[in-house]
Order: sequence, then C-alpha cells, then structure tokens
Amino acid sequence: MSALLSAEELTRELDRIGEERYHHRHPFHALMHEGKLSRGQLQAWALNRYYYQSRIPIKDAFIVARSTDADFRRAWRKRIVDHDGDGKDAGGIARWLALAEATGLTREQVASERQVLPAVRFAVDSYLDLVQRGTMIEAVASSLTELFAGKLIALRLDRMREHYPWMENGLSYFQKRLTQAPEDSQFALQWVIEHAQSRAQQEQACHALRAKCDILWAQLDAIHFAYVEPGWPPPGAFQMRAEGQA
Amino acid sequence: MSALLSAEELTRELDRIGEERYHHRHPFHALMHEGKLSRGQLQAWALNRYYYQSRIPIKDAFIVARSTDADFRRAWRKRIVDHDGDGKDAGGIARWLALAEATGLTREQVASERQVLPAVRFAVDSYLDLVQRGTMIEAVASSLTELFAGKLIALRLDRMREHYPWMENGLSYFQKRLTQAPEDSQFALQWVIEHAQSRAQQEQACHALRAKCDILWAQLDAIHFAYVEPGWPPPGAFQMRAEGQA
Repeated sequence: MSALLSAEELTRELDRIGEERYHHRHPFHALMHEGKLSRGQLQAWALNRYYYQSRIPIKDAFIVARSTDADFRRAWRKRIVDHDGDGKDAGGIARWLALAEATGLTREQVASERQVLPAVRFAVDSYLDLVQRGTMIEAVASSLTELFAGKLIALRLDRMREHYPWMENGLSYFQKRLTQAPEDSQFALQWVIEHAQSRAQQEQACHALRAKCDILWAQLDAIHFAYVEPGWPPPGAFQMRAEGQA
Repeated sequence: MSALLSAEELTRELDRIGEERYHHRHPFHALMHEGKLSRGQLQAWALNRYYYQSRIPIKDAFIVARSTDADFRRAWRKRIVDHDGDGKDAGGIARWLALAEATGLTREQVASERQVLPAVRFAVDSYLDLVQRGTMIEAVASSLTELFAGKLIALRLDRMREHYPWMENGLSYFQKRLTQAPEDSQFALQWVIEHAQSRAQQEQACHALRAKCDILWAQLDAIHFAYVEPGWPPPGAFQMRAEGQA
C-alpha cells in the first residue's frame, strides 16, 4: 500500500480492475451478443444509453475546463469534437441517434430524454459529479474504461451483424469508436502514469476506474431490471410494446 | 398550465403524484409486507437503506444552510436533531443501525457503507444534488414524500411484527417516525403552499416530488434486482449467505 507502483504494475492493476468490473461481463451484454434481445429490449437499451452518450462531451468539457495545461486541453478537446461533431463529421451523438432510429425509435423520442430510467440518470449524473468534484487524477482515470472498450465493441459489431442484421444502418457509432477509443485511452493512461506520482494518487486512479465501472454496470442493471427480468419499468419510463405490435 | 392552483388543488395534485409514484407501490415492499423476504434479503435492504438514512441529516443541513429565514432554519433544524440525536435521544441513524443489527448484521459492516449497491448510492447522491442545486421550492418540496410515509410505516410495523417477530428489537426507528413524519410534512406542505406563488413554482414543487419518488423507487429496484430477481449483486456489493448458513 505504500511503495510507488511501476508503470507496468499500475497498468496491470488497472487491467485487473477492468477484467473484474468492466461491463463486458454484464449478463445483459451476454444476451445481446447471443442474439437473445428483442427489438423492444434493444430500443430500451439504445434510448437509455443515449443519456450516457449525450453527457460524454459535457463530461469532457468539464475536464478541459479544469486543466491549466494548454497541450492537455488541446488533446482532450478531440473527445468533445468526436462526440459533438464538426463541419466534416456529424459526431458520435448523431451516430447514436442513428443507432436508436435503426431500432425503430424516433429521434425525438430519444433526444427528448423524457423516458430515461431514473437509475440510468442517477448513474450518469454521478459521472459528471466525479469529474467535477474529484481530483484531476480521478477525472482523467475515470475515462480508462476505454482501455477495455475496443474488444467489446469489435465483438458487438460482429454479433449485431449476425443476430440483428436490420440494425446495420445504425452501426457507424461502433465502427468509428474502434479507432477513436484506443488513441484516447492510450493518452489518458500515459497521463495517469506520469501524473500519479504517489501511491495515494495511484490508488485514486484505481478507485476512479472502479467507480466508472460501477457507473456503466449500474446502467445495464437498471435496463435489465426494467426490460428483461423481472421486467418492471418504474413509473414514467419507456414502455416496450408487446412483440408483434407495429 | 397557467392559472395558479388553489392550496386545495396543489395539495390534491401532490397527493395524486404520491399515489402514483411513492414506493408504497413497489413490489419489494409488497414482498416485505407479505412476509416473503428472507433474513438475507432484509439484511440487504437494511444495509442499503442505511446509506439513505445516513444522508438525511446532511440533506437537511444543506436546506438549513440555504435559508436566510431564522424561523425556517429553526423549524427545519429539528429534522437534523431527529436523525443525528442529542443529549436525550440517540437519533434516527442510531435507531436504523439497531434495525440492521436486529437483522443479524454488525454495526460496523453497515456503518462502513462499503457494501452499498452503487445504484443506491447514485440515487441518494442525486437527492443531495437536488437540494443543493435546485430552487428552494424544489429542496423543500422534495421532502413531501413524508406526506405518504405515515400509512406505509404503520402498515410495515404491523406486518413486520407478524412476519418477522425476531426483528422486534429493531423497530424503534419506525415507531418514532410515526409521530415525527406527520409534523414535518405538514410544515413543509404549508411552506410550499405559501412560497410557490406562481404556477411555474407550483410545477417545480410537483417536479421535485416526482424526482424524490424516483429516488426512493430506484433504491428498491436496485435492491430487488441484486437480492430477489434475478438476484445479481454487482461486483463489490453485499453478498447474501445461503439460507441456513450461520
């Protein structure tokens, strides 16, 4: 608990946390990848996860705002552009809306955020809280779930094409993340390794990664609870139509 | 949407929201009151709900801190004393720990908050956020779930004595709330009626009450998901022992 970890040891510990807690292990993802989700369940997932997507550039703007290092700010700004888009690219949020439309939802229904599960909202809002109130080490390290995203997204693309071919038009979000996530996560990992110069700061980084894994996991728990098993959406949340209904 | 509601109309609307959304309707409470929860499930409930209880006086201190009216502050301070205790009374948090002990947990295991479900934490933290960042109308109105607490607590006391007689020593928390909650909720209701002097402010009060109902409901969703059905506590959370184990 006292000696500073080497870069390799810290990286190994972060990997261990991801292996144990990242949402690639969540049973809802297993159902998704086995082709066992209905269209309504995929709608519920896309609609709820939109709330997370919509808060990502806000989260990144908070991190940019907290840094006094112009090089860091420039590097991190890329993430805001990736999600909000620019003259050349529509951005990740627009791609997520296209994914939601591919499931059969309207853009307006999703973008209004009216039917988001409260528990998804609470989890995502706690992410915004973490990057504002935590230390800068925690704010940056909470993004390190991206270290594990590549493998999950590659698998998902494969399995979605196999099991839900009607979603093909909505998959550009994931396609794009295959190249964006690795460069972002390597930058963040290097930054954490360089700036966590005490064992306590290294522990902060590990704690923030665990907290972020909890935030992702809790979203899927809430979606599963409401739309798979036992299947009880709370008052006011998105309701699935019975299968077969138009 | 435009005309100011009368005191009676506003009260009726708040009652309607409670009837629709307060957690007296949650299936986990139905199981509890039918005697269908195991000791382990009651432990999980007591341990997780402790996190909510522990944040109540913090929430109330934020509300006291926001008011420039000494009469209001004095009246609201009672709530802090009710939970934190004073020379004469141990307070509601101590009584909740006694409840948790009656289920067979140790005081330390509960008070450490180490095994709280992340989703419970997120929901409760969003309550703290609401009373800090919302308007004063919202902060006060979010306490109005207490209007509906009396009936639920009276029923619970009855049913707990019937179905879980071994918890008798832990029931003083609820016994005490039977008298505390009604006087608090009447004060808050009168304050909201007097201070919500536009329809927009009345809508704020209704919105805050709905948000608070969501916060209570989401806690039970998370507990049910982890410990009843499908029964998947996330990594790091409280684990039930198999029934029959000591």
